[in-house]
Amino acid sequence: MSTTPAEAEAMRRALVLAATPGVPLGPNPRVGCVILAPDGTRVGEGHHRGAGTPHAEVAALADAGERARGATAVVTLEPCRHTGRTGPCTEALLAAGVRRVVHAEPDPTAEAAGGAAALAAAGVEVEGGLLAGEAYALNDAWHFGLQHGRPFVRWKFATTLDGRSAAADGTSRWVSSRPARLDTHRLRGQADVMMVGSSTVAVDDPALTVRDADERPLAHQPLRVVVGRRDLPAERDVFDSTAETVQLRTHDLDAVLADLFARGRRSVFLEGGPTLAAAFVRAGLVDEVVTYVAPMLLGGGRSAVGDLGITTIAEALHLRITDITTLGEDEETNVRITMTATGAA
Amino acid sequence: MSTTPAEAEAMRRALVLAATPGVPLGPNPRVGCVILAPDGTRVGEGHHRGAGTPHAEVAALADAGERARGATAVVTLEPCRHTGRTGPCTEALLAAGVRRVVHAEPDPTAEAAGGAAALAAAGVEVEGGLLAGEAYALNDAWHFGLQHGRPFVRWKFATTLDGRSAAADGTSRWVSSRPARLDTHRLRGQADVMMVGSSTVAVDDPALTVRDADERPLAHQPLRVVVGRRDLPAERDVFDSTAETVQLRTHDLDAVLADLFARGRRSVFLEGGPTLAAAFVRAGLVDEVVTYVAPMLLGGGRSAVGDLGITTIAEALHLRITDITTLGEDEETNVRITMTATGAA
Repeated sequence: MSTTPAEAEAMRRALVLAATPGVPLGPNPRVGCVILAPDGTRVGEGHHRGAGTPHAEVAALADAGERARGATAVVTLEPCRHTGRTGPCTEALLAAGVRRVVHAEPDPTAEAAGGAAALAAAGVEVEGGLLAGEAYALNDAWHFGLQHGRPFVRWKFATTLDGRSAAADGTSRWVSSRPARLDTHRLRGQADVMMVGSSTVAVDDPALTVRDADERPLAHQPLRVVVGRRDLPAERDVFDSTAETVQLRTHDLDAVLADLFARGRRSVFLEGGPTLAAAFVRAGLVDEVVTYVAPMLLGGGRSAVGDLGITTIAEALHLRITDITTLGEDEETNVRITMTATGAA
Repeated sequence: MSTTPAEAEAMRRALVLAATPGVPLGPNPRVGCVILAPDGTRVGEGHHRGAGTPHAEVAALADAGERARGATAVVTLEPCRHTGRTGPCTEALLAAGVRRVVHAEPDPTAEAAGGAAALAAAGVEVEGGLLAGEAYALNDAWHFGLQHGRPFVRWKFATTLDGRSAAADGTSRWVSSRPARLDTHRLRGQADVMMVGSSTVAVDDPALTVRDADERPLAHQPLRVVVGRRDLPAERDVFDSTAETVQLRTHDLDAVLADLFARGRRSVFLEGGPTLAAAFVRAGLVDEVVTYVAPMLLGGGRSAVGDLGITTIAEALHLRITDITTLGEDEETNVRITMTATGAA
């Protein structure tokens, strides 16, 4: 592979564009694109803003206009040759007169792959693999969906040092510190589904929205999903107009995830309650666990984790730590531990 | 204060000598001493090896012999002028013909203080305060005892991420990983009392010894203390000949600590069981908490922390994190969180 420093720099910019937060992605990957003139100056850029909107290349070409002729397109994913709700990007690049295409990751989908070969056959110089690892990491949940045919499930719970989520009388404000709650909203914003059980809605009445530090809801909200058969009053916060909400009246978690996948959702942020979370764990459907540990002791009260059907130590669910981060200071310190399921009993 | 680089280097060596592990300190502080000839070469060194043995200065003077005449004594604690089981160090330094004394920390005890003034009055050059912070930290538990009149209590517990110490059937091997167990033995070796409740001895039969990586007991062992009224069979491991053991048949924890303080013990390593530990917590007698968190879930089973008499979140016991360390790798990873009691409810 032979690429220039200007192309590498443009790829880094394309990755930043691709990661623009607040995009309702649906089933599509994040993609960014930068158009470079023959002298290396940037003449256009764009990123994909969600299903049904132009692909990153098309947006960048529109930004560049006539300057795209003879230029190089630097894009985080191999251009598609798939005609979906928008035309294939390969056609758009050829029509704009692009001379060269540098992409990061090859397109892993059956229907859209082959773009690089199609461009090369039409006489365009094509280079692949530049910053491919970074591009892959950008679309973790999308890749997970391609491989597993269901959304990625991240389960978050907050706990005291002794495994409690609330005191004996049910009070819990605050087991998680303010820095931990802000961090939770950051993670919520990365998901396209917020999920809870129907009992949690009945008892705790959570809003399940992504809010900023001033408690204002962000413009783009994940889909709110309530799982369970319990009838719920329409005035619950989860049914307000801040975000879309569906209730799935089933205990079949495979069916729940299949339904969400069919709706184009690729990542689920599961917050509880303990019964629903335990059901996901028992079913082997939790892919990542994020725990906020508060340095406090209750010695009793509500358990942070529900019954997992485990009776002996050999059946314990082992997790692999991928990150430990301290959030906040002094009295507000929480320890965030992130783990993946190892599959080992 | 005016000291030379050679004296600073000698003080660092004296601090290392003072920290020699495996010393049965009893109620005495750790002290190290180095004798420097007028040209800055080390001609003697020594450290205190426990109650009834020579003080560090006397040991270092003996090591130096005649070379102590006209020399500088560098010592981690102000030389005592107290005649206890050994003579005052000020007298020994004067008798040896030492010209100059550099010490780190002033002696904080009423009966031994004044050594620096006595030496100065006898014509010896005295400089205090060199590396005083390091010297203070060396004797944390001793200082705690001077201030509070009782031993420092460090409580250690191991827990799963969801607050369990054993599965529903009582199995617990291993909630703490091998690196965590080795680390526990390191901390046991820093204490001069290993404490458990009598029920733990009856049920779990722990040895309560400090062992090396090959499970061999170290030469110096803390006093083993069993608290509680339960009658125990003499064949329990805790009553073997590896270390001294006492059973204190009371539930009055102030009396327990007063008894141990009177025996010259300054630091207690409390390992359980949950009932005894909870009683110490409720009484406000836990000064530091060391928790080993295993990244595993049980969803039920034995709680790592017993009833603390807390019923509502406002009564939660808040701790202040002083250290977070990851021990081991992959499947053996544990997270050690060290905390001090903040006093805040």
